Formats: sequence, C-alpha cells, structure tokens
Amino acid sequence: MDYQQASAWDPCATLATFLTLDDLAKASAAFSPTSPPPHHQHQSGVQVQTPATPVLKLVDEAKDKGYKRLCIPLTTAKWEARWAHMCLLPTESSDADKEQAAKDAEQWRLSPGFQLDEVTITRLDEAEGIIAMISEWLELDAADDWVRHDAEIALKQELAYASYLNIQTAILPAPRNRDHVASYARIVNSCLTKYPYTYLSIRLPIYNPSAFATQPPPLVPVSQSFAESLSPSTSRSTPSLVISMTEKEPVQPGGSLNATWEMWDLIRSMCDYNPRLTLTLDLSPALPTTLGVLSKWAAESVRYIFLPSSTFIANVKGYPVLPKPTQQFIRDSMIHRPMIILGGVSDGHHSRGGEAAYSQYVRHLEKTSPAVQATKQPGTVENFAQGYQDYLQAPLQPLMDNLPSVTYQTFEQDPVKYAQYEEAMYHAFLDRPAGERFVVCVAGAGRGPLVARCFKALERSKREATVIAVEKNPNAFVTLQHRQAMEWNNKVKLCFGDMRVIDVPEKADILVSELLGSFGDNELSPECLDGAMRFLKPAGISIPSSYTAHLAPLSSSKLYNEARSPKNEKSLETPYVVMFQAVNILSGTKAANDGRCGPQVQECWEFEHPRRDAVLDSRGLPYTNSHNARAAKMRFYIPHAGVLHGLAGYFEAILYGNIGLSIHPQRKDQVSKDMLSWFPLFFPFKEPLYLPSNSELQVSIWRLTNDRQVWYEWHAESFISIPAAADRKEELMLSTTFPATPFSAMGAPSPLIDSKEPPRLDTSRFAAYGTSEEALYDMVKIGHTSLHNPGGRSSWIGL
Amino acid sequence: MDYQQASAWDPCATLATFLTLDDLAKASAAFSPTSPPPHHQHQSGVQVQTPATPVLKLVDEAKDKGYKRLCIPLTTAKWEARWAHMCLLPTESSDADKEQAAKDAEQWRLSPGFQLDEVTITRLDEAEGIIAMISEWLELDAADDWVRHDAEIALKQELAYASYLNIQTAILPAPRNRDHVASYARIVNSCLTKYPYTYLSIRLPIYNPSAFATQPPPLVPVSQSFAESLSPSTSRSTPSLVISMTEKEPVQPGGSLNATWEMWDLIRSMCDYNPRLTLTLDLSPALPTTLGVLSKWAAESVRYIFLPSSTFIANVKGYPVLPKPTQQFIRDSMIHRPMIILGGVSDGHHSRGGEAAYSQYVRHLEKTSPAVQATKQPGTVENFAQGYQDYLQAPLQPLMDNLPSVTYQTFEQDPVKYAQYEEAMYHAFLDRPAGERFVVCVAGAGRGPLVARCFKALERSKREATVIAVEKNPNAFVTLQHRQAMEWNNKVKLCFGDMRVIDVPEKADILVSELLGSFGDNELSPECLDGAMRFLKPAGISIPSSYTAHLAPLSSSKLYNEARSPKNEKSLETPYVVMFQAVNILSGTKAANDGRCGPQVQECWEFEHPRRDAVLDSRGLPYTNSHNARAAKMRFYIPHAGVLHGLAGYFEAILYGNIGLSIHPQRKDQVSKDMLSWFPLFFPFKEPLYLPSNSELQVSIWRLTNDRQVWYEWHAESFISIPAAADRKEELMLSTTFPATPFSAMGAPSPLIDSKEPPRLDTSRFAAYGTSEEALYDMVKIGHTSLHNPGGRSSWIGL
Repeated sequence: MDYQQASAWDPCATLATFLTLDDLAKASAAFSPTSPPPHHQHQSGVQVQTPATPVLKLVDEAKDKGYKRLCIPLTTAKWEARWAHMCLLPTESSDADKEQAAKDAEQWRLSPGFQLDEVTITRLDEAEGIIAMISEWLELDAADDWVRHDAEIALKQELAYASYLNIQTAILPAPRNRDHVASYARIVNSCLTKYPYTYLSIRLPIYNPSAFATQPPPLVPVSQSFAESLSPSTSRSTPSLVISMTEKEPVQPGGSLNATWEMWDLIRSMCDYNPRLTLTLDLSPALPTTLGVLSKWAAESVRYIFLPSSTFIANVKGYPVLPKPTQQFIRDSMIHRPMIILGGVSDGHHSRGGEAAYSQYVRHLEKTSPAVQATKQPGTVENFAQGYQDYLQAPLQPLMDNLPSVTYQTFEQDPVKYAQYEEAMYHAFLDRPAGERFVVCVAGAGRGPLVARCFKALERSKREATVIAVEKNPNAFVTLQHRQAMEWNNKVKLCFGDMRVIDVPEKADILVSELLGSFGDNELSPECLDGAMRFLKPAGISIPSSYTAHLAPLSSSKLYNEARSPKNEKSLETPYVVMFQAVNILSGTKAANDGRCGPQVQECWEFEHPRRDAVLDSRGLPYTNSHNARAAKMRFYIPHAGVLHGLAGYFEAILYGNIGLSIHPQRKDQVSKDMLSWFPLFFPFKEPLYLPSNSELQVSIWRLTNDRQVWYEWHAESFISIPAAADRKEELMLSTTFPATPFSAMGAPSPLIDSKEPPRLDTSRFAAYGTSEEALYDMVKIGHTSLHNPGGRSSWIGL
Repeated sequence: MDYQQASAWDPCATLATFLTLDDLAKASAAFSPTSPPPHHQHQSGVQVQTPATPVLKLVDEAKDKGYKRLCIPLTTAKWEARWAHMCLLPTESSDADKEQAAKDAEQWRLSPGFQLDEVTITRLDEAEGIIAMISEWLELDAADDWVRHDAEIALKQELAYASYLNIQTAILPAPRNRDHVASYARIVNSCLTKYPYTYLSIRLPIYNPSAFATQPPPLVPVSQSFAESLSPSTSRSTPSLVISMTEKEPVQPGGSLNATWEMWDLIRSMCDYNPRLTLTLDLSPALPTTLGVLSKWAAESVRYIFLPSSTFIANVKGYPVLPKPTQQFIRDSMIHRPMIILGGVSDGHHSRGGEAAYSQYVRHLEKTSPAVQATKQPGTVENFAQGYQDYLQAPLQPLMDNLPSVTYQTFEQDPVKYAQYEEAMYHAFLDRPAGERFVVCVAGAGRGPLVARCFKALERSKREATVIAVEKNPNAFVTLQHRQAMEWNNKVKLCFGDMRVIDVPEKADILVSELLGSFGDNELSPECLDGAMRFLKPAGISIPSSYTAHLAPLSSSKLYNEARSPKNEKSLETPYVVMFQAVNILSGTKAANDGRCGPQVQECWEFEHPRRDAVLDSRGLPYTNSHNARAAKMRFYIPHAGVLHGLAGYFEAILYGNIGLSIHPQRKDQVSKDMLSWFPLFFPFKEPLYLPSNSELQVSIWRLTNDRQVWYEWHAESFISIPAAADRKEELMLSTTFPATPFSAMGAPSPLIDSKEPPRLDTSRFAAYGTSEEALYDMVKIGHTSLHNPGGRSSWIGL
C-alpha cells in the first residue's frame, strides 16, 4: 500500500487506542502470570523483561502497533455496582436496606476509596502512558441533585486515584443534559482546582448530542427515597427540596446542531478557559455536510479525536475508509496536531486490512491534508511561519524605533512583495513617455531593496530616471552608502532625515514607499506620506496609490488565553501581529440577502496618496492630523453560534494600476500569493462576547489622533432579529389610548386636583409603531463588549 | 395652599431652572449696567451689591425664587453660525469659499477657541452655581464621520471653557441616532478622561427617542464636499472613505420603547460606569402608563429630571398639574434625591398660579410620595435604614466571630422579630397539655432576648417549663449570668459552649434558635442545628421549623460600582448585606404563561428541623455535611431589557404553625411587617449581563460544603425565544439526505477509494427535529456570566 512508503514523513497527529473493560477482561483471561517467566532469553539472546500483568502486556502490544497512548477505563463494573447500591437504591427496597445503604453512603462520602477489584490498574508501571477514561456512567449533569452530588464525589475519587498513579490525563464522559451542564461545568472546574497537575478532557460528540442522551435513571437516590418514605409530605405548599431534585425540566424544543458546541462553550467558560481543560471530539455520529458547523472546532482546544471503528465504512474491497465529510474534517484538523484515539480496532468490523488498516488510513489522510502539505512546502506562508502560529507579537513601530539590520533582512527575503513593487514601478515607468528623464524618490529606503528594484524596473522599461532615496534610520543609512558605492555607482541621491521634515534636491514624478503595516495605516504610512508629498511635482504619483484596512470577527480560545496572560496587564487593549491557526472567522462568507450585513471580511477605510483635499500650510504640510482620523461601523452576519474573542485585521494596497498587495484572506492568493511579510492583526476583546446563530454583529472601530499619537479604539454590539413582542404592541396600545384614561373628577377644584384635560400627546410620534409588516420584526440588542483602548490609554503609535 | 405650610419638611429633591438664549437676550435687553449704580443704599440702610451683569441678575433672581441651580446654554447663536460656516458649507458654495472654509476649519481644529460674543458667560462670579447646557445642535452621533469629528472638537472646546470658568457640571444634548451612539459614547468617555473634574450628564427623553429625532443635516461637511468636487471617483470599486461617511444606514424597524434606555446603557457601559457620568431624564414626552418600562430608571444614576412647563397640564382652575403617570414617576423618583430642572416657567403656559406654581406642585408631589413618607416615619425599615441604602456590608459570621455587645443590642431593638418569636413560642406552648412540665432549650441565647420572650410566652400560655440556654460566646455568657441573677431568679440552666459539641443536662421538647441570615442558611443555621438536634427528645420540635432561600435578578449601576471598588480585589465574588434603594428587579412579576418561568422572586431551597432523613453516628451527629449541600436552577422571565448586575437574596422562615419571618419583597408585609433585622443579600456578577426584552434568565446557585467551610457559587445564562432558523432546517435536510450523496465511483479498487456504501446514519436520531409546531421556536442562548466564587475561593463561611 503506497501510503505506507513515505517513512521520512514527520507526523502531525499521534495515535492512541481505546480498550474497553471487555478487552481488559479478555486480556486477563488469556494472561498467565507464571509462563513465560518474568525474565527469559529472547531468541536473539537478549534478556527481555516480560510484562508482569495483563495491562502491561496490553500496553506493550499497543506500543508495538504504533500507538503512543492507551486509553482504558479506570474502574470496573464492581465499582459501578457498589456505587449504585449505595447511592441509587431501587424504590422497592426495604426500609432497612435503605437505611443501611444511606449509612454506607455516608461512610463512603466521609472517606471515598476503591477496593482492589474496583479498579483496572494498580501499579505505577501499568499507568505509564495511560489515559484514564472516567466511568461513563457518572452523571455529573443528572437532573437529580443527589445523583449529581454523589457523582461529583465519585469523580474526584477516580481523579485522586489517577493522580496517585501519576496518570496525567483523564477523559470525562460527555455532558448529556443541557439543563444541568452548568453543574457539570462547576464540578469540572472544582476538579481542575483540586488536581492541579491533571489534564481533563471532555468527551463530546461533534454534534447532535441527542444521540448520546440517556434515559433518566430509573432509580431514585437513596437519601431522597429514604426521606420520602419517612416524611410523606410537609406542611409547606412548595417543598423546594423535593422540587429542585425531581422537577421534570421542560424539554428544549428541537435541540440544535450547535447544541454540542454550546455545552462545550459553557463548560470552558465556567472553567475560565483553563489551559488544562481540553476537548475530545467524538466522531461516532455521522458528520453533517455543511462545514460551517464544523469550522468552529478549529477555534477550540481539541486535543483528542475519538474515532471508533464503527465510524469507518467499507470500500468495495472491504477496507475501512471514512465518509467524505469525516475525511475532510480530519484532514483539516491535522494542522492542530491532535491525538487520534482509535476504538474497537480489533473487533473485526471490516473484512479487509485488519487492525493496522485503521491507523494506516489515518496516516493517509494526514499526508493528503492540504493544510499539512502546505506547511511542508518551502515558499509558502505556512512553511515560513512554522513556530509563529498563534504567537502574539507587538506590531513594529518603525517610525519611533530604528529597526535592526536583521529585521530588514527578514522582510527583504519576501520574494513576492518586492516582485510586486518592481512590477508596479515597471508599469508606472512604461506609462511615461520614452526618452524623457524623470525623477523617482524612494521614501523610507531602509537598506535599499526598493532602490535596487527601481533600477531593475528602469532597465526593463528602458527608461532613464534620477533616483532619490530618503531614510531616517542613521544605521540603515550606512548600508545605503555602502550599496551606493558598491552597487549603484553613486547614481542615487541619498538624503538623510525624516521625510516629514527634510527637503529633497529635486521634486519627484514618482514617490515609492513601503510603510504599510498589517492593517495598512498602522505603521503611520498616512502621516509619513503627508510629509513626503512635498517631494512630489503637482502631477506626481505615489506607489502605493491607496490602501484599505479590513476586519472580520474572530473566535479563538487560544488567542484569548494568550492575550490575557499576566505578562501585561493592559494586554487585552492592544492589537497584536499574529499568524492565525487555531481560529475561526465567525462571519458568514456572503453578504446577507436583506442587505443589512456585508461580507465575511469588511473594509473599514481607505487612504489615498496624494490626497486630493489637502489643506496645507506654507511649508506644504497639513495644519492638523484631523484628516487622517477615520471611523467605521460594520455589520456582520453570524450564521453559527460562536464566541467573539477579537477582530482580525487585514490590509490591501494598490501599488499601481492593477498591481497590489493583499493579506485579505479571500483575495490574497489572487493579488500577491505567497507573500510573507505581513501576518494579520488581532484586536482582542477583554470579555468574550457570545454570539448566537443567525445574529448580527455590529463593530465600530476608530482611528484617532492627536498631535503626538495615533491609536485605534474598538467596540462591538450584538443583535438578533426576532418577531416584535406581543407586549410591546400591547404597551403601544396602552400608550396611544392614554388620552382616554378617565381622570378623577371628584372633589373641589384646587391646584392639586388632577386635570380632566388629556395631556398633550403627539400621537404622530407613534406612527412609526404601526402594525405594518416591517414592524413585526425587531433587531433586538443582546450584548456588547466594553470600549477598548479608550483615549489610546493602553496602546498607541508615536508620531 | 395647604401644601406650602409644612415648612419643617426636609426636602429630598432640589430645584433648578433652565433658561434659554431668548431668556438671556431679554435679560440683557432689560439690563442697564449703570443704573442702579454698583453699590447703593438699600431702603433698610444696608449696602447691597447690585449684580454687575445680566447673568448675575438672573442668578440672583433664581435664588430668590428658591432654585438652587441655574441651567443656561454656554454658547450663542453666533458660535453655531461660525461653526456651521467652517464645518458644514452648503453644496452650492463656490470652490473659493469652500477652500477658505476648509482652511478656517483647520486653523480652528489646531487651536479651538471662542470669540467674546460666542459665549453667554465670561466671568467666574457669573459661573457660580451654573450648570452648563452644551450646544443642542452638536451632533456627536451624526451619520457623517466629519460632522461627528468636528462636533467632538467643539464639545471639548465648550468643556474646556466651562472648566476654565470652574463650572462643575455640563448637560450634553441627547443622542439621536442609534446607529452611531457608540461614537457618541466614545466621545463622552474621551471627555470624562480629558476633564477629570467635570461631571457630565446625558439628557435623554425617558422613552421614545424618535420624538427627538432630527432630520439628517441638509448640509455636507466641507472636507467631503471639497474632496468630491475635486476627485470625481477613484478607480477602486468600493471607495471606503466615501462609503463610511455617507452610507445611509438602514432604518431600525419600528424602534422600541426600550430604545432610550438602550442608548443610555451603551453610553454608560462604554464609559465603564464612570461615576462622573449621570443622566438627565427629560420628561417632555408623555409618559407611558406601564410602570415596567419606567422602573428600570430607578437602577440608573438619574441625577437630573428635566421638566418643562409644557409637560404640565391645567386642572379645571387653570393651575399647572402633571398627568397621572408623570406624577407617579416623580413621586417614586424622589427617594433618589434628584435635582428637578424646571424649564419655561415664565412662559405663561398656564393661566393660574404663575411661575411659583410649578415648584410648589413639585414640592407637593415630594410630600405625597409614599417612599419619601416612609423614610420620615419612625418604626419603618426605610426610616431605620437611613444612611444604609445601597451600602455594602460583609455578612456577619456569628459562628466564627464572637459578636460585640453593641451588635446584639442593635438587633435586639427589632420589635417585630421578637414579637414573632414570642408568638410562636406561645402557640407551641399552648399546643402542649396544660399542667405538664416540659423543657425549652434556647440554642444560641446571645444576651438572652429569646430567654426573656420564653418566660413571657410561658406566662401568657400559663405553662411551666425548664428553660435551658446554650451560648458559645464567652462575653455574651457574662451578660446571661447577669440577667440570670437580676431578672430570671436563677431559673435558667445556663450552658456554656458550642451547640455542635457540648451536652445539655436535660433533653428538650422545644428547641428555639435565632441563627438565620439574610439568605436563611448563610449564617450556618443548618450546621449548628444539626448539632443541637442532640438536645431534642425524639418527638421534639424546632422553632424555626423550616426556612427557605429566595432569589431575584437585580439591576443596579450603583451596587455594581460599589462592589467593584478597588478596596477588595475579590469584591465581585462575595455576597453582601445591603439595603436596596437604587435597584430594579428585572424579572416579571408573574410566572410566565407557558410554565417555563417562575415568578419574580423564586425559591432556591429549604431546610427543615429536625431533619427526617438523618444518618447519624453514635454521638448523634451526621457523618458528613453532604446533606446540607444544595443546588437550585431557576428560570426568570425578563419582560423589559435591562442589565443584570447581581442577584437579590431573601429568606422566609416558619417559626411555628403559621407564624413566620420574611424579607421576601412581596410577602414580608403580610408575614412580619416592619421587621428590621435583615437587609437582603446581594450576589454580584463580575461582568454585567445584558438581557433583552422578553428574554429568559436561567440562574444556577449552589450551596457547597467541605469539612471546614460552606460557600455559595452562582452563575447565570440568558436565552431568547425565536422562530427556528431557516438554515437550521436546511442543514437538517442536508444531513438527512446525506445517504443519497453520490460517491466517486471511478478508479481502480484500492484501500483508499471511497466507499459506495452509504454511511450508517441513524436517521431516527433526527426524528426530534421534525417540522412540527413546537420545533418552529427555539430557545436560543445569548449570553452568560462567569462562574462566581468557584471552590469558595473568594468567600466562605467557616464551620
């Protein structure tokens, strides 16, 4: 099989296998502790230590098959039976039995612990490399208060035992009851605090959790049944204790494809995004074909993917393969380096390929994953950015700080950016009459890459020009002088100084600059070029001629956790440069039909050079920086529920004609494919904002300025469209019929007696509230973030 | 007029008057600066300084009429004209005019300032006691970016001038454009930072802001029109600069009665609840009759109420009076001590009463306000609690801390509580056979108030009993010994020690205790009484026999700001005892019709004594405290949009039979009217949660315990009911038709070729998603709080 060949492949995913209690029982039955003896001679003559227990044998076998980890249940059926007997006694039990069970339960609650035959592992060496599967029957979200209460004690008992055995990771059974997921979450959070070295992972079906719903337990908890048998009913009309325990919660109508994610969101939020809490996505249920539902998992900390052999289907030859949507999901997930837990691989579900076929197939998916392939291919952003994924960097401030040579060198390696610049200059030069000498000024020449490209473009276009290079970094200016002497034959007019202040020897026809940041204007290109415009002849042009800033709403637990790390107390009020990986853009890919909302990524504002509306002083400089202030308000359609953690910022620039630069996620490949110089910007939000499915997100962002600084402020509000409420209409009726309300007419006339005259009510004001079709739907506000970075308090760019 | 008589009345509200530019012009015209001379002899012979300016004269007149403050516009029409000429030039202006205007505007933006004739006040003495009304024509929320931009500069210019004149407070014009309220809020926040000693108040119509909507300005800002005239249209397909400036935002359908509050909420949230930001409620529009819409203002920082004479109607004698809903609103507001700004009082709107009639009428409303009356009447909670309103206190921990005598004394002053206890004992004693001696044990006797009441009840019921008093506070035990000697003739068996540990000389028939906190069990009554149950005979009873804890969702900017004050970093994770005043209960007063939601205030849980289900060790004590753990999940219906800042906690107790104690807001007056001992509990939320109208709030609260501590954790989630989304149905269709999707059939059979076999999709799983009527509506989650006080991290009660 060809997909086994490429042994040099560096795998992204690791594999694990899941064994059931049955598997353990079979291994135990087959195991004979005395033969072979603990130490025997291998054929090769090397002494090999033979596993001393069935579990050790299973671990060894799994390692031999290429599994990095073995997932096994920590407790046996005996423990389940004892727990149920203590905590869930059948109603028909005798009072004496109930009393004994209640006493046993209290003794157990006082000091919880296992008997030997209630656990599957007893030795430290057995536990090495094991992931503990917590008892599946524990109902941490049971409707019954006392079942939950005792399940919490039992869970902590298992975790304490796992911790004793140095087991690092435990996978918890899935929440099943939406109405009590808050209790499940509270218990998980309590465990994360109590066991500070244990990683917990929540097993969740990827969607449609109703497939996992269990019937409410037919048993009544001991304490309650015991209580009820003794005290029939108290004198209080609403005995809350009984109600809160046995109340049958109304069934949530329908459920939702987002229901699984919603449960996860609640759990991880209530656990305050604890990094030791991860997700085990269970792919047992069939996957939906719409990827919108699935893409959200990319923004969550999915550590494990549970893939039972029953999820595989057989191809015509009988080998196990996965359905198309599952294939695609796993290919896309590979980039996040999950551990894939294969279950039931020895059950013989498929006629061909045997146990090995499942892991071979997973490896095949990995190698054919476009995302993984991209990281392995030199020249791609994905390959270039290895190690930088989801790593937050403060944006450069090249105006305030003089860059080191190594930074110039890194960015000069971008083959695409400078090719685009050369192409733009080439076409700009071609558009000038042949034989006529003109002037090109490179404003912010750095170490000279644009000067070099300028000469290439002049050569290609067969044009002659005077080249001026302006640079304010005194260190880079040494490099420019060096290249001037070595490469450029002293043909360049080098000018040292800030382009907002100095003068150039000759006015230019074409001004070339590379002052753009990830958000376009965020390295103060507008302000710098305002100054450099003095270098241009009246009809001169700028390369770039314009640039735009773009935003999209983003979800990412990882970036949220990174941004709020205690390194920097104001860390959630400043934008970061970051190569996105574990993120999900929340907005819909298309503009909404009703025209209210724009596309997935929306334009904020534009800057053009030269400005057409410039009001300049005698030196040719603007009086104020007011004209570089900007404000934008955008409406995004949110098709699937998600949590807003920040905004993704991108830019596009037009260099000349149709030659541009773009990091816009949907257009970058057409405009400037494989350009490496810019990662997107991330504007974080302090408090995650929950956005339901089919909601609208309104984002405001401002570019503000005073005479010393430029900064951004940002804010978001969420809305949902609902039918106009009945009581709102009712209120309107009451209000408009107000004049008819009779006032008291009794008593002698006095200044205090109420008027009979109706108040002057301008009923025309209510005209807008008619019962016309449009009024039947309201955009209802449902939430907002705080205002971020007010007054540039936390983050600004120095002018 | 009788309501003028009570001169001893201590007023809650202060009065101010608002003068227009016309009033100022009239005063200026009538004013002659030379006659009378600056200093002249008064008739009485005392030298009086005559006002030297028209403004000073107006100020003096207002003071004479009883107004504490004068509200006047700070700028004149001349300034409005100059600003408009610079910043809003008509489209038909010549290019030269536009260029000049643009230059003037830039010069102004560079250093904003007034000319003498552009302001109404110039002297420090004129400004004393003045509230500045900021230019009404400033559109801080204009749809046009540049109008907003220049309005912000103009606002800051006015505030800088007010600050120069030592004016403390400025009232800002109302926001008018919901789509740009975020910009309005950002500007206000920027001003609060820039002028750290100035109080800003936002003028807002109490509802229906559409009454205040202005047409978009017919003028085009200079910079834009100028730009457009020069550069017809750029090459970019979507020139964002122009779009973001001129885009016609779609009109919000209908609007909402909550719209005004929603704007205020956004502003104060974006200003991070700055205590220098207040609200000026404008009562010009007619008020609605439903108080649900109005009650929310009680939870906001309403500092001023603007009441123009045009809001008054005439009674049959021609005197100005207010419509009923406005009367009631003002009466209810009086408790918050607002300043009432009367406007147009000299316009002669009403035929009788003259200018004085308006302020007299407001004073009359104050005196007839039930809330104000309650605070003035001794014996009411309102009177008792003077000075404690909205003041956060840490709950007592009488088990851990021994209370000082003065604390006992305060609580012993409650006439109602001890009368109820006496009554309960009296009836319990009556229910015992006459002539038969029994044993009463007071567990936690403190300084002895219950012992004294016990003797009274014995006397009244003509019963004989042995009285035992148990107390663990060694200091209070001295007082008990003193009373034993002086009052009780050594008839009481005094036992020193913790009721959970010590033994009593004789088993009791009736155990009386007063261990309840504001939330019932929050001073560990359940745990203490578990121990004291050893003192009871098998058929013995406890007074109280049971108690319940209750919750309601609460909105209060004030409590939120108090709780997050920097005094205590964990201050938002601990409950407080507080006498509520500036609060609003968000839940609807009735249970929802559909049965999903309970009433306004809901019961969490109950404790009964003696417990029926006790599992006890040989000493008669419980093995663990597990049985005192509780959990409750409640659903509240939220009729009107509001912000959740916390939960209000209450208790009810049954002492004996139908005699009880209650601080439940709807039942306390029936059960134990004027009881003073308990203010409610306030469970704060760290992040305010926005709740839309017609939403559902689900609150989870847990009472948790280990062997040393008891603590509460709390959490909330919000939902809204909407029609099932079209795309959800679509997705379901896609999922269920999945088996029909054709798989690739080409290529040679290989392990990697996809299967033709459809995946095993259990379609029965989708049965729940039918298109039946119920499935057409979903409860959609829209937000949640974090989990508060996890693991008792921030707040616990010591066992």
